[in-house]
Amino acid sequence: MERRTFPTWPEVAPRLIAVAAGREPADTVIRNGIWINVHSREALPDHSIAITEGRIAYVGPDASHCIGPETEIIEAKGRYMIPGLCDAHMHIESGMLTPAEFARAVIPHGTTSMFTDPHEIANVLGLDGVRMMHDEALMQPVNIFTQMPSCAPSAPGLETTGYEITPEDVAEAMTWPGIIGLGEMMNFPGVINANPKMLAEIAATQRAGKTVGGHYASPDLGPDFAAYVAGGPADDHEGTCEADAIARVRQGMRSMMRLGSAWYDVESQITAVTEKGLDPRNFILCTDDCHSGTLVNEGHMNRVVRHAIACGCDPLIALQMATINTATHFGLEREIGSITPGRRADVILSSDLTELPIEMVVARGQVVAENGGITVECPHYDWPDWARNTVHLGHALTAADFEIPAPEGANRVRANVIGVVENQAPTRALKAELPIIGGLVEGEGDVCQIALVERHRATGGVTNAFVSGFGYRGKMAMASTVAHDSHHMIVVGTDREQMALAANRLAEVGGGVTIFRDGEELALVELPIAGLMSDSPATQVAAKAQQMVEAMQACGCKLNNAYMQHSLLALVVIPELRISDLGLVDVRTFEKIDLLEPLA
Amino acid sequence: MERRTFPTWPEVAPRLIAVAAGREPADTVIRNGIWINVHSREALPDHSIAITEGRIAYVGPDASHCIGPETEIIEAKGRYMIPGLCDAHMHIESGMLTPAEFARAVIPHGTTSMFTDPHEIANVLGLDGVRMMHDEALMQPVNIFTQMPSCAPSAPGLETTGYEITPEDVAEAMTWPGIIGLGEMMNFPGVINANPKMLAEIAATQRAGKTVGGHYASPDLGPDFAAYVAGGPADDHEGTCEADAIARVRQGMRSMMRLGSAWYDVESQITAVTEKGLDPRNFILCTDDCHSGTLVNEGHMNRVVRHAIACGCDPLIALQMATINTATHFGLEREIGSITPGRRADVILSSDLTELPIEMVVARGQVVAENGGITVECPHYDWPDWARNTVHLGHALTAADFEIPAPEGANRVRANVIGVVENQAPTRALKAELPIIGGLVEGEGDVCQIALVERHRATGGVTNAFVSGFGYRGKMAMASTVAHDSHHMIVVGTDREQMALAANRLAEVGGGVTIFRDGEELALVELPIAGLMSDSPATQVAAKAQQMVEAMQACGCKLNNAYMQHSLLALVVIPELRISDLGLVDVRTFEKIDLLEPLA
Repeated sequence: MERRTFPTWPEVAPRLIAVAAGREPADTVIRNGIWINVHSREALPDHSIAITEGRIAYVGPDASHCIGPETEIIEAKGRYMIPGLCDAHMHIESGMLTPAEFARAVIPHGTTSMFTDPHEIANVLGLDGVRMMHDEALMQPVNIFTQMPSCAPSAPGLETTGYEITPEDVAEAMTWPGIIGLGEMMNFPGVINANPKMLAEIAATQRAGKTVGGHYASPDLGPDFAAYVAGGPADDHEGTCEADAIARVRQGMRSMMRLGSAWYDVESQITAVTEKGLDPRNFILCTDDCHSGTLVNEGHMNRVVRHAIACGCDPLIALQMATINTATHFGLEREIGSITPGRRADVILSSDLTELPIEMVVARGQVVAENGGITVECPHYDWPDWARNTVHLGHALTAADFEIPAPEGANRVRANVIGVVENQAPTRALKAELPIIGGLVEGEGDVCQIALVERHRATGGVTNAFVSGFGYRGKMAMASTVAHDSHHMIVVGTDREQMALAANRLAEVGGGVTIFRDGEELALVELPIAGLMSDSPATQVAAKAQQMVEAMQACGCKLNNAYMQHSLLALVVIPELRISDLGLVDVRTFEKIDLLEPLA
Repeated sequence: MERRTFPTWPEVAPRLIAVAAGREPADTVIRNGIWINVHSREALPDHSIAITEGRIAYVGPDASHCIGPETEIIEAKGRYMIPGLCDAHMHIESGMLTPAEFARAVIPHGTTSMFTDPHEIANVLGLDGVRMMHDEALMQPVNIFTQMPSCAPSAPGLETTGYEITPEDVAEAMTWPGIIGLGEMMNFPGVINANPKMLAEIAATQRAGKTVGGHYASPDLGPDFAAYVAGGPADDHEGTCEADAIARVRQGMRSMMRLGSAWYDVESQITAVTEKGLDPRNFILCTDDCHSGTLVNEGHMNRVVRHAIACGCDPLIALQMATINTATHFGLEREIGSITPGRRADVILSSDLTELPIEMVVARGQVVAENGGITVECPHYDWPDWARNTVHLGHALTAADFEIPAPEGANRVRANVIGVVENQAPTRALKAELPIIGGLVEGEGDVCQIALVERHRATGGVTNAFVSGFGYRGKMAMASTVAHDSHHMIVVGTDREQMALAANRLAEVGGGVTIFRDGEELALVELPIAGLMSDSPATQVAAKAQQMVEAMQACGCKLNNAYMQHSLLALVVIPELRISDLGLVDVRTFEKIDLLEPLA
């Protein structure tokens, strides 16, 4: 495996010292900018930065003593010199891109450090999948730290993943060079109940001196929350309101506030700082999940910081939340997150501190992007065939696989229906009376069918249920092998023939997303790697994803971010009602429930 | 060696979770106090703390679900519940006390965590001495983390220590359980010049993931300072003015502001926060050096916090500077420094947030002090005889050992004289014309003799010179085996007979401090361990030290903290002029200079 070598601070300390002292010339000097100092929280005009060996050697009002004939000079011309932005928690797979292509998409937006939890691929390919993501991450020109996935399956007993992650896997991963901690501990009921496997994973991380990521997706801030905190997670990004953010910080966690493609949790929580006046140091910005379209059209962490500022946050505090606060959280404050000696030379030039245009990006001392265009290679990992061939259906599906037989003698039934809520991850557990036609229960009105198609072990298993809220009309079906968290295949449709067509099509192309209407494929996003990611550029993936969105709209769906909703319908850790390969799951009680109930 | 075992968070996580959830009873509940939350920077009334296994399990408005029949209840009665105070950088030896007796002295003042650099004993007993200090530290009921001394000798080539510390020693120490980082890197010229030995020590610390302590004792904030920062030290406590504090923080170091027995560097620097409005997170309070008298009469970190508040600092910010800021700096923010789940249960009860009376101290869940009285044992290490017998003079000294022969034929000479400056560590390099009597140069007026008596290798060596500023009158001498940093013996006197008496007396008692006048011993502080420390209680040592101060005053010395001045006269890393076993040292140039100069 190719890995970019990057020297440690002690390895290059003699050079850094010599440059700072003026005895040797810097490789690069960024001259005459406004130093955004995230340690002191100041904007200091007329400063220059001297860089050597990819690290910062000197920052001061005059770096002329560091300049030799070979020194490259970058004129900041009075612009802001901002530390490269950090995304504190995210899933690369959400961009439907490999780490290389994700990096290529976000570098021009000023992101130079990412803390990524390859949780999705862990469910499909296990520890080997995590290792490949980790290895591709280390090949990139920016800093991609890997959080070892903690919860595959995320809800044991409620779903069957392709692979499971064990405490032994976690302990092994902690020895890998790019592992920064444990990924979000989603099994919060497990922690609250002192589940030995979950606690063993946390313990392995704590013993390695690394950071335990949290995920407490419940509004309950009483003893359950306290018990979760006592279990060891050091952060949480599932808060949705000010009280959530405050509770997390008071309990000694860091509150990660996210603005993803479909997460809008900054505005509702940042008032803890902007209005309640809490010490901002324990608040961190992140994206969690970003689609490639968002990356291409709106940005990445620059979008989040800009949004935080628009929500009333002081720009310097907002920048701290995306730089030094994150670095400190992961024990990296002497490595990244500020423009100070010894740190990796990750610097953004921007002419405006509110709109945050990203005019130049330097990472590890190298110009990696300029005016929105990338200027560096992001090498691809050589993904093996078995990682590109992961959709195993067992047999070609037919409409019969999606039939829901009615109870003997009934002519209507009451069904438990998954209710999609626009712009929110939680679903509602609805009930609907549905008609029976020819012995089969049929959708009606906005209630259509959903199926979870097993794809890891070729069992041929199909779990059928109902969903409402998409607004689909006509004969259509949409299928996706992105199906959090176990990533089987979710098929939603108004017509069983179309559902079979869509499912079989994904088996044919190795995974992705497709929409069929009246026997015709309206859109296809190929995601050949683990059925989750493309190694094509973000612009191409975003264009295909846009066609997919338009196809969904053409089929009648008016929801914002409806694809996100589709792909989360099997996420059996977020309330209220979900589907898995084992059946319908009530996530309020973490119990399987029947699809159909007798009419009273 | 006895070591207090203290379970790690993961070891007791199941219990913490069970208590937080209300399934099992806490060992102790502190009920109904005002929670000082150093994460959010808030004072939150009506909170309770549940403790088990020495760690905090729960903090919330109501801990009744954690209370069982055996749970010990401590009624806070509306008082403040403050995290135990941390001293971020200090030398236990400065109290002339062993770690056990130091702990016993400071626990009632609310100090529950100390970051101690046993630099003094390292000079006398080398790595073995450090290990014994480290081991006694781990026996205590509070948290004493050891910083591995970096600079013995502190100025190589300018003094001869009892032992030297090598990069190999540092690498070995990094594997010990109580080592938290590298002690202050005092050889700042070495770092600026990329001295391989100094950089190797820093590298060994950085590779171990631990914190490199700094010591940059120069007002120059230009390229020299930048070069020092680029070398890796992560903090500095030698700043004396606001500009120093600001420069350190801007460069990504933490500014440690000290109030020791003789250091007054808080008031002059804290304006960086109180007036200039810098983010306070990178400012930390410490003592560096405290005499036992200060500990007995004035306090320890409570004195520093109280002082910071008196200087205009918000009490919550001042408390952060002595709790979470320190914990974060040393990578311990999930272990100490706040009252939040999982952390060691180190809690102070106080009824006033400005005066900070320490009414109860809980450490690791145990009541360790109440109303100024200690309620717990602080076990002593069994110091071996060779550590108690470290004053090796070679021969009994006589007045002749202190004679300073005049140049042939001169009747007056010009001498370089060490000028003591009240309340400051730096001395002045003075010159004085001195008389010659019987072929010997003699002190005159306020200029008296100073001698550095070799005591580590029994060489019999005596370096003679002159000092001014003490104001001594009559025939007297004062001797001390506390003689930073190499800790030979410093003898200051107006009379060579008295100087010999004092020096021989210390050889007899195994080290300490003594004052003779007219052949009579006025005071004696025995410091049998390494000639630096007593294993008697602080009250006894303080009483003897007080007699010593009174004896100095009786001999005419009117300086504040004159003993401190005495013991620092061989500190060849702080300007301007010092004495060592190798001669007079000009610390502005780090060069040895002649005692006598020809008259122009």
